[in-house]
Amino acid sequence: MTVTSSSTYSEQPGRIMSREMAEQPDVLRRLLDTGAPRIRETAARVAARSPRFVLLTARGTSDNAALYAKYLLEVRLGLPCGLTSMSTTTAYGAKPDLRDVLVITVSQSGGSPDLVASTQAAREAGALTLAVTNNPDSPLAAVSEHHIDILAGPEKALPATKTYTASLLALYLFVEGLRDGDGAAARPLPGLAADLLARQAEIRTLAARYRFAERMVITSRGYGYPTAKEAALKLMETSYIPALAYSGADLLHGPLAMVDNISPVIAVVPDGRGGEALQPVLDRLRGRGADLVVIGPKPQVEQASAGFVLPTEGVPEDVQPILEIIPLQLLAHEVTIARGQDPDAPRALAKVTETR
Amino acid sequence: MTVTSSSTYSEQPGRIMSREMAEQPDVLRRLLDTGAPRIRETAARVAARSPRFVLLTARGTSDNAALYAKYLLEVRLGLPCGLTSMSTTTAYGAKPDLRDVLVITVSQSGGSPDLVASTQAAREAGALTLAVTNNPDSPLAAVSEHHIDILAGPEKALPATKTYTASLLALYLFVEGLRDGDGAAARPLPGLAADLLARQAEIRTLAARYRFAERMVITSRGYGYPTAKEAALKLMETSYIPALAYSGADLLHGPLAMVDNISPVIAVVPDGRGGEALQPVLDRLRGRGADLVVIGPKPQVEQASAGFVLPTEGVPEDVQPILEIIPLQLLAHEVTIARGQDPDAPRALAKVTETR
Repeated sequence: MTVTSSSTYSEQPGRIMSREMAEQPDVLRRLLDTGAPRIRETAARVAARSPRFVLLTARGTSDNAALYAKYLLEVRLGLPCGLTSMSTTTAYGAKPDLRDVLVITVSQSGGSPDLVASTQAAREAGALTLAVTNNPDSPLAAVSEHHIDILAGPEKALPATKTYTASLLALYLFVEGLRDGDGAAARPLPGLAADLLARQAEIRTLAARYRFAERMVITSRGYGYPTAKEAALKLMETSYIPALAYSGADLLHGPLAMVDNISPVIAVVPDGRGGEALQPVLDRLRGRGADLVVIGPKPQVEQASAGFVLPTEGVPEDVQPILEIIPLQLLAHEVTIARGQDPDAPRALAKVTETR
Repeated sequence: MTVTSSSTYSEQPGRIMSREMAEQPDVLRRLLDTGAPRIRETAARVAARSPRFVLLTARGTSDNAALYAKYLLEVRLGLPCGLTSMSTTTAYGAKPDLRDVLVITVSQSGGSPDLVASTQAAREAGALTLAVTNNPDSPLAAVSEHHIDILAGPEKALPATKTYTASLLALYLFVEGLRDGDGAAARPLPGLAADLLARQAEIRTLAARYRFAERMVITSRGYGYPTAKEAALKLMETSYIPALAYSGADLLHGPLAMVDNISPVIAVVPDGRGGEALQPVLDRLRGRGADLVVIGPKPQVEQASAGFVLPTEGVPEDVQPILEIIPLQLLAHEVTIARGQDPDAPRALAKVTETR
């Protein structure tokens, strides 16, 4: 097994991504200390309008944060939600009736023109609009009635990391505000995030497993599903390994044909009902002899080919996603370095940003 | 180039899938002749209740049909829609307020227990429920207030083909009924579908291109996006090639790093606004030297590495999806045979069905 520290490279590949991943405990703490009161006020103003339906609009990493919010809003508040198909307004000029609808747009930069256009159209169609961004001076914040600042500081690395966990926590605090909760479950997160970041050596060992992988399957259920999607995106945009994310239920409806010993599988196993619902999928994967790596509670990891134990004691299932992505961010970083590539310099992303 | 007719195999791999693909013109005609009047009546009863939001529930191939319906409902009727995250009710027991909400559940068999449970829960929560299935005697049809029969006849092949195009047409006719349209744009579909099926030789030539592909990217926008997702699913569940579907906009937000000459790209280019919105993505792919195969109008195919020309003259963009999946179904079938596998016998699906 070849485990190479990134610091042995002269050009230190992945240095920017690494630094921003390491900032996550501070970012989460800042959001809890400085951001929370304002998020609570925003939530109170939104709650006063009693929205009946929520549409979430985002792309890429932010879309996975939006999916997390969808689970929270449906499970905790019983608010039916949808993810926006943006082209219906930007390409087809759809004029939906959005009275009683809360439209939440999530965007790190807040600058993507189609998100701005789609949010503006939603507001004109009667929606209550809320932008969740890392830039209060952004055009998206300007066109939205309400704004939540995720306070993550400038993000320079092309693969988004700290803005993802900050978006999740901001959305969690917002939903807590809507239901008049105190968000106490989030208080241990900064410390637990720091503990996870300290376990990089374990991740390097896991990364060696994927040195020559030609594909990967990542699965979860419930609150863990956004994590599976974000982990797949992170792995693809850094290492270029085709990583396919499926909810456990969807995996059984077809793509399981791809698994066996051909595709290694990473299962994100929430400690809670999502993890319970995933058990039949894990049983089947084990029965088929799949190479199964589990990110989850200790008893689950012990039944797998390998894994990474998450601290779930005292961490409710609905805040676990804010932690469970961290080892997977580290994994994307380490696998990419193990394959001789630079996580800070994905081939296509920079060029895209220029012309966006 | 080795092009082998499936009939030269002693066991005729893919015979069942092939036969069901060939039935599509008849299935579409039956739905237009026999099914349309009842679908229109159902639509009138639903329209009388004036739903304000729509939630669509489905898995696998049916989920792609549901996504097509989402575009239709948003663009043609301005009805905000969401796709259900089923585990919120089945695993977490969410109790959403579904008054004024139309819940459409799409399922070929109508027998999946979680779909039945989720639809029943939606009805109890005040939703108007509609099931779209291939089995009027199914448990799903029984628990739903309204039912649309897609009249596709028994589907034996594990990869769903005729039930997909039948679901799309049934959903199109339903949305036409909601808006009191006459559905005339659908009338040429059976003849056009037969024309496409007669062009199998062109598809065999294209299939040779993917004989040794280790991954594929499929992209589209707007009405073509459900086709891209369904094509990726079809390719994966028959050939096991990891096929990643992205909307053109999402492709630019990260996964483009995977493209270049590593991953061949298939672009489904609708003749209309979705195709126009896809142009910057196609330009970028061409600029990066991607192997780009276009399924779309002739001028688009001529600018690509290779392609398949779709008949779009007189076919509005919103019915094109019912045709454009057909060459991609054929492609999945031919690629699988070219790789020495049997599209009728995917490794995992049969076992899954036993225990579903």
